[in-house]
Amino acid sequence: MPSMRRAPASLSETVARELEGMVKSGVLRTGDRLPSVRSFARQRGVSVSTVLLAYERLERLGCVDVRHKSGHFVAAPPQAPAPKRTRPKVSSAVSTLVKRLRHPSMVQLGGASVAPSLLPLRALNRTLSSLAREVSGLGARYENPRGLRTLRQQLVRRALSLGVTLDEDELIITTGATEALSLCLSTLARSSDAVAVESPAYFGWLQALEHLGIAAVEVPKSARHGLDLTALARVLEAGKVRALLCSPTVCNPLGSVMPEAQRAALAALLAKHHVPLIEDDALADTGWRGRRPKPVKAWDADVLWVGSVSKALALGYRVGWVAAGRHVAAVETGRLALSLAAATPMQAAVAEFLSSGAYERHLRKLGPSLEAQVCRYRAAVVKAFPAGTVVGEPAGGLLLWVELPEGVDAVRVCDAAAAAGISVAPGTLFGAAFRRCLRIGCGAPFDARVGAAIETLGRLAVDPKTRAP
Amino acid sequence: MPSMRRAPASLSETVARELEGMVKSGVLRTGDRLPSVRSFARQRGVSVSTVLLAYERLERLGCVDVRHKSGHFVAAPPQAPAPKRTRPKVSSAVSTLVKRLRHPSMVQLGGASVAPSLLPLRALNRTLSSLAREVSGLGARYENPRGLRTLRQQLVRRALSLGVTLDEDELIITTGATEALSLCLSTLARSSDAVAVESPAYFGWLQALEHLGIAAVEVPKSARHGLDLTALARVLEAGKVRALLCSPTVCNPLGSVMPEAQRAALAALLAKHHVPLIEDDALADTGWRGRRPKPVKAWDADVLWVGSVSKALALGYRVGWVAAGRHVAAVETGRLALSLAAATPMQAAVAEFLSSGAYERHLRKLGPSLEAQVCRYRAAVVKAFPAGTVVGEPAGGLLLWVELPEGVDAVRVCDAAAAAGISVAPGTLFGAAFRRCLRIGCGAPFDARVGAAIETLGRLAVDPKTRAP
Repeated sequence: MPSMRRAPASLSETVARELEGMVKSGVLRTGDRLPSVRSFARQRGVSVSTVLLAYERLERLGCVDVRHKSGHFVAAPPQAPAPKRTRPKVSSAVSTLVKRLRHPSMVQLGGASVAPSLLPLRALNRTLSSLAREVSGLGARYENPRGLRTLRQQLVRRALSLGVTLDEDELIITTGATEALSLCLSTLARSSDAVAVESPAYFGWLQALEHLGIAAVEVPKSARHGLDLTALARVLEAGKVRALLCSPTVCNPLGSVMPEAQRAALAALLAKHHVPLIEDDALADTGWRGRRPKPVKAWDADVLWVGSVSKALALGYRVGWVAAGRHVAAVETGRLALSLAAATPMQAAVAEFLSSGAYERHLRKLGPSLEAQVCRYRAAVVKAFPAGTVVGEPAGGLLLWVELPEGVDAVRVCDAAAAAGISVAPGTLFGAAFRRCLRIGCGAPFDARVGAAIETLGRLAVDPKTRAP
Repeated sequence: MPSMRRAPASLSETVARELEGMVKSGVLRTGDRLPSVRSFARQRGVSVSTVLLAYERLERLGCVDVRHKSGHFVAAPPQAPAPKRTRPKVSSAVSTLVKRLRHPSMVQLGGASVAPSLLPLRALNRTLSSLAREVSGLGARYENPRGLRTLRQQLVRRALSLGVTLDEDELIITTGATEALSLCLSTLARSSDAVAVESPAYFGWLQALEHLGIAAVEVPKSARHGLDLTALARVLEAGKVRALLCSPTVCNPLGSVMPEAQRAALAALLAKHHVPLIEDDALADTGWRGRRPKPVKAWDADVLWVGSVSKALALGYRVGWVAAGRHVAAVETGRLALSLAAATPMQAAVAEFLSSGAYERHLRKLGPSLEAQVCRYRAAVVKAFPAGTVVGEPAGGLLLWVELPEGVDAVRVCDAAAAAGISVAPGTLFGAAFRRCLRIGCGAPFDARVGAAIETLGRLAVDPKTRAP
């Protein structure tokens, strides 16, 4: 069976999609002239008629205007309505998922966590054990409310290797990335304000927005084209959002990694409108291969850059952080008000683990293991799911985003799966529009039980009881 | 020198104050008949004229109505304006205090933390060290979002010994009491809502309200009369507050402990108006003597009862909790949204420390140590401060609330003290009305350096530069 169940794209379609992607990502802008048919054909080594077909296709889609004797030009943004404010409402669905995730006998495809067997927990806990025995008075006092200095220094060092120069005083250590994100949100926005979020959006963001009474404005994102900067520009021009929430490196749920060119364009666009970016890199350390693109923070020092060791090291240590640039004083005020400080022994153990080089050594092994694992999951999904399913092609992390054929209701699939002893996350957790999507977590080693569960999911996707009402 | 610098009260004044206290605390209510002059005199063993003078005094104060041939009756609440909504604004002052508290060479009278030398940190850290070495995969997973079950079970057991029956499923373990409190607030109120707070109010509450954009309605409280239930009733009748924040056991900053009779009246009054109580017991474990009054939670299972081991065990472990009654599901939703979970190893170590009995053994020693220490601080303050100073008489904890003579500006005293190398908290942190007050933290063992610092404070309180503008 083919890995994509759609009819393979024709060459002209591929060319057209590529150009469309350049428009969506902002590489080509309204009014830009496309290359001449002849030169583009030469440049790509395809026939003139292929390029002509592609341009015609773009014209039909409204992406391109033909001007007599002048050539093809990028058309003004389509008349699609500007993204609207919505009130996230995911708490009850998240509670349902959390309950399923805690069910001891379910096959767990619903989470986004790496199996403990892939994590250096024994070494980390040994580090903690030694510190607790050796450091006199560990945990006796509140530390600097920004966090343990040794940990912040390690994070500065690590950021440097990722292409970002941080100031240790702009860092605030938090109880996991979740606290960092909610703290940024409650600092930048009040209830009745709105923030822009990439869509599909990590449900943790939506939960925080819901709890804080902040509205969301969803900006489309796809694994292929990244964030729709045209739509974002429209949102920013309306001037009503307090921030943008985005996960450029290993997106949850898409698993995509935003290319460097789009990062630069995104940073410039936000800076122009004075809207801060909350860059969620919580999954970034689960990337698969060597060097990852520089974070958007590298282009703008005032990005609120959020990270964590939860995903790649230890969920239960609850150590995250935000490098908040010029927002740091405001975020610190919020942190004092909401939780005062993070647990010192946890910070000390993570600092020591980073400082020893053990974390970097671990990541070098973790990436390839996850890649191999996700590939096995993906192959199983491609094999088991019905024709018409579009299976994501993540570039990192441990998540598979799956779009079911038309007419299938993913929430019903998830409920039926739960009844069959399988947890899996419905697309609606990531935005109301994703009723046909599933997020499959591939953190646990692939085995026969997982394989059987995926087969069950595939069967449920064609079961009459999972048809959309 | 006398311990109170005010002229000693006359006998009739004492009797009048006592009756006034009974009215304020709700023991006597509007329309209640006072005992006849004769019977009251007999009952108290004082002369009829003393009681007559006391009743006349109460009449002048508007507390008592005389009805011809019927006797004396508690008057309707005075025409004092009902407490108004205020917008707490303490963040910048708290930041100043936090900076001073972190100054390595200052004498620290500004904090509310027990010196590490009085805490069993070595034993606690040994417990953590053993667990980290022995419990396989400690910290590998998110625990139940409500927290580690072993810890919740220990808290249920401990609550029972304090006179409260908890359900382990109503408990949510948090990153310290601060997170528990802010979580309760953001769950029960939105920005633009208001909550009632006892006044003076712990500045951490005011900070959280400020950050969340929630207004405060201040309800007067005094160490002598407790919370002014008449004022609270007026606030509740206006029907515009989402909750009451109160610290009945070891109040911060007053150090007072609300008597049991007032607890019952408070619970009944709130229940009548369907307004939930957030009962902050963060300092309760620093109480001085044996049995403490039952928490208000004992009278109403739906009180949100907040506690912590920060004050009496380890600040840096960041382990607190809330027993939220019927509010638990809503609080849990907020907790998932805002911070997901507290660090597992910290919870495990505290659970083990409680379960072994080490915590209770420690508290039995801590109370008397703190009492002796606070007494030495208090004696030094009484000796060093000018006539007209009213020095609080705490019933527990480690805080002294000091009211300076008229004309002295406590903020100026604190600033001058900082310049002289002493941190101390100005009353304005606890409410705008407390410009004449200081909170002196007595957590560090009393020594010559502390004694000298208190003498300096006393001198500064009569220095022309600290006069109110």
